[in-house]
Amino acid sequence: MHKSRLSGFIIDCETSDLGAAAAFWGAALGMRVESLPGEEGQKYARLFGPDQNLHVEVQTVEHPSRVHLDIEADDVEAEVRRLEALGAKRLRQVRSWWVMEAPTGQRFCVVRSGAPDFAALATEWR
Amino acid sequence: MHKSRLSGFIIDCETSDLGAAAAFWGAALGMRVESLPGEEGQKYARLFGPDQNLHVEVQTVEHPSRVHLDIEADDVEAEVRRLEALGAKRLRQVRSWWVMEAPTGQRFCVVRSGAPDFAALATEWR
Repeated sequence: MHKSRLSGFIIDCETSDLGAAAAFWGAALGMRVESLPGEEGQKYARLFGPDQNLHVEVQTVEHPSRVHLDIEADDVEAEVRRLEALGAKRLRQVRSWWVMEAPTGQRFCVVRSGAPDFAALATEWR
Repeated sequence: MHKSRLSGFIIDCETSDLGAAAAFWGAALGMRVESLPGEEGQKYARLFGPDQNLHVEVQTVEHPSRVHLDIEADDVEAEVRRLEALGAKRLRQVRSWWVMEAPTGQRFCVVRSGAPDFAALATEWR
C-alpha cells in the first residue's frame, strides 16, 4: 500500500544559461524564481506561484527542450511497478528517482514525495 | 492592464485512441477522466484532481507526443504582446488561442481565462 500524486512539471531547457531560461519562465508565468543551493543550483531553478503543492522547476538539459511531468510517491519502487502494470516502461534510475516512458511516448519521472500536503492530496493504491 | 497565470498542462498524445491515452494518464496520475461533449470530445479529455484550478487535459495530436503548458489571460492579445516583449514568438492562432514558442524552444498556448479562482490567482500586468 502506497500513495502517489501528480507532483508538478519540469521545464527542460536546452541551454547552458539557466539564469536566462528561469528569468523568462518566471516572468512568463508570473512566478517567483528561486535558485537552489550548491551544485543543484547549476542545473535547476524553482518557480513559486500561489499553489504551494504544484512543483514547477526550470532545468538545463542537453537534449531538445521540452516539458515533462513528475509523479511523487512515498514508495518509488512500488509506484514504478504500478505504472509498469499500466503499460509504462522504466528507462533509467537517477539518484532516488526513475525516468519512465508512457505508452503514449512521453518521458516522465517518479520521484520521492515532498509536497507539503502530500498525504492529504495523494491517491492511496492498494 | 490585464491578468494572466499558468493555467495548466496539456498531455499531447500522438494517437487516434483518445480513450486509451486518457485512461492511462488518469490511472497514472490518480485523476478522474471526464470526456468533453460533442466534437471536442473526439480530441480532448479532461483530468480532474484535488486542485480545481490546475487544468490538465489529454489531447490527441498528429505530431510526436509531448507535454505543453497553457497560460490563461483575461486579454489574450495583451498577454501575447507581453510574452513577445520577453522574447517569445507567435506561431499561429487557433480559434481563440495563440500557439507561441519560448526563447528556450518549447511551444505553449495562451488561452482565454477560465479557472474558478482566476482573478484571485492571476498576476496583474501594468
